[in-house]
Amino acid sequence: MALNLQTKTAHFTNPLYLESGRILEPFDLCYETYGELNEDKSNVIVVCHALTGNHHAAGRYEDEAKPGWWDGMIGDGKPIDTRRFFVICVNVIGSCFGSTGPMSPRYPSSEPYRLKFPVVTVTDMVRAQRFLFDRLGINQAYAVIGGSLGGMQALCFAIEHPNFAKRVIILAATYATQPWAIAFNKIAMQAVVNDPKFKGGQYEIGAFKEDGLPSLALGRMAGHISFLSPNSMAKKFGRNYVDTDGLYELFGRFQVERYLEYNGHNFSKRFDPLSYLYIVKAMNIFDATRNFESLHDSLSRIRAKMTLISFKGDLLFLPEEMEKIKQTMDDLGRGNLVEYIEIDSKYGHDAFLVELDKFDMHIERALAKDEDGTRF
Amino acid sequence: MALNLQTKTAHFTNPLYLESGRILEPFDLCYETYGELNEDKSNVIVVCHALTGNHHAAGRYEDEAKPGWWDGMIGDGKPIDTRRFFVICVNVIGSCFGSTGPMSPRYPSSEPYRLKFPVVTVTDMVRAQRFLFDRLGINQAYAVIGGSLGGMQALCFAIEHPNFAKRVIILAATYATQPWAIAFNKIAMQAVVNDPKFKGGQYEIGAFKEDGLPSLALGRMAGHISFLSPNSMAKKFGRNYVDTDGLYELFGRFQVERYLEYNGHNFSKRFDPLSYLYIVKAMNIFDATRNFESLHDSLSRIRAKMTLISFKGDLLFLPEEMEKIKQTMDDLGRGNLVEYIEIDSKYGHDAFLVELDKFDMHIERALAKDEDGTRF
Repeated sequence: MALNLQTKTAHFTNPLYLESGRILEPFDLCYETYGELNEDKSNVIVVCHALTGNHHAAGRYEDEAKPGWWDGMIGDGKPIDTRRFFVICVNVIGSCFGSTGPMSPRYPSSEPYRLKFPVVTVTDMVRAQRFLFDRLGINQAYAVIGGSLGGMQALCFAIEHPNFAKRVIILAATYATQPWAIAFNKIAMQAVVNDPKFKGGQYEIGAFKEDGLPSLALGRMAGHISFLSPNSMAKKFGRNYVDTDGLYELFGRFQVERYLEYNGHNFSKRFDPLSYLYIVKAMNIFDATRNFESLHDSLSRIRAKMTLISFKGDLLFLPEEMEKIKQTMDDLGRGNLVEYIEIDSKYGHDAFLVELDKFDMHIERALAKDEDGTRF
Repeated sequence: MALNLQTKTAHFTNPLYLESGRILEPFDLCYETYGELNEDKSNVIVVCHALTGNHHAAGRYEDEAKPGWWDGMIGDGKPIDTRRFFVICVNVIGSCFGSTGPMSPRYPSSEPYRLKFPVVTVTDMVRAQRFLFDRLGINQAYAVIGGSLGGMQALCFAIEHPNFAKRVIILAATYATQPWAIAFNKIAMQAVVNDPKFKGGQYEIGAFKEDGLPSLALGRMAGHISFLSPNSMAKKFGRNYVDTDGLYELFGRFQVERYLEYNGHNFSKRFDPLSYLYIVKAMNIFDATRNFESLHDSLSRIRAKMTLISFKGDLLFLPEEMEKIKQTMDDLGRGNLVEYIEIDSKYGHDAFLVELDKFDMHIERALAKDEDGTRF
């Protein structure tokens, strides 16, 4: 059955107090829901999106070439079964897909914030979502699920809103972003900032919709490298050369180069450069131990059952980073709340988006009915 | 004892027939030598430099802050002992440090080649060096040694000039550049090409000596990421933040970011962007199996004793790529010619330049006197 798709926007006039001490007021949150909310509102699954994703997680609009980013996971009869669950996916603040971000008007003016937009954190993204859930009368979620930046949000829900989610499923994420990931992000940020077309953030709204922004494309290329690994690239591309290019032409290309160009270019037409800078920043400064004594202290707040899924060959967020969450929970005597699963994948970090059949059974199992808390 | 330093340039008026079918004529080769050539010219060690290196491998000129790039390895009493050996290091063609490259005048005009410079390959770099050795009356080398691009040259000497080197020592290289390395190089090339200051290669000579070229700095940042690994970065930088920067400032920096900025910026002041494009291209298209039926076929030509040194955590050229050379030689029944050593290092690819004490004993041993060919 086709999902009854509709993108909704909620407008909030209350202030959102940010971790930085700044205030976002007013703000909008854009979201989609799939399935029906049951009477006692006990069937809510919150799906959190990644850096370049958005609230459109499932289904396909008529004018779309591709369905939402986790369409294989969410729907009737799918692992996150919309016949049973009410699924909600909220666009993060800072984004360029409808929730308030750097190109949104800076109240009371109608001019966009641009670089005056405050730095937002994962904590802020999650806190904003709680306002929406309050408005919808949702005080608790059956589960919160997310990969990468979405996984950071899920972990943040577990730590900072310990009574909200009964289950938290985290994929391909970390408890604190490590320098290897920050270094890749640096390439992306620096490329955009250096670009004369970026004009220090003073570009025209929609300026890059047609031709894209080459520097953002370049940054995205760095991203695509970090999502893969030496072995996955070797399997995917080998040393294959583009047929029409000459080996001894300076700008002749290997297929891996064309792949990066293609993906980078397309991305730079659909994503706003300022939003990219702000969301990347949020990822870089994500650290679940900030404002706590230690990781032990931080994780000791968790009450939810947790499923941690990492992927072999994920160089952006190493399996050992996820495993450290499990180990810390073991140390805390809370190991019974947590299961840690490492998936063998040749896709590296990207696996959580593309190789669903490698891990969807774990999602399904984690969502199975069980109320006694002893399942793991 | 201080080395008697002198940079020499040899001018060649004969044509250099390139692998592409094009011709370089005339051409210059810039080089340095350390130690004394003995009477029967049997004590020659050829040291081949890497992508961003040059012929200045050892010793320190009066106006220099740092000595040559392998000064810890080459000198009196050092592993490559200049009391015993005559060491020669030749700047590769395509470079910007004296040998003919894209900013050299295109004879008979006095205008630089720029993008009209032919694509050169590792085969061409090595062939050019043979002309110099011929002129110096050197028909054979006691050993050829190199890391990274230098290792590719060393392998090329072994395969394509099988009677030249009696020993070949290859560090942190590969038999054919794999897509992960090509992908990183893509970032660097694309950044430069996109840059309006690059002007399609029509920039003024020396234009970037003062302020550098930010796009080349960016490309070099990508290089620096590829030289390290997630674990080595975590050890080196952790999540340390620059003291003077604010965590909630959009452009506040982690220390890893400042490290990348610093190294990228310095590099972009000393390296020519066109040379960078051409040498990166030579690395990308390096493939010891090209023009042969297979790697077996190619390696079957080798007569030199080989020492292969790889580094754990080298993500640019994986240890398994070097091991494949050893395995193939084993398959060919030539395993007795080859030793394969994997060094435990936290530096990744960079180790061959910075962690000499982890492997210099292997170099020393490989250079020890032994004429019966059964040492391994």
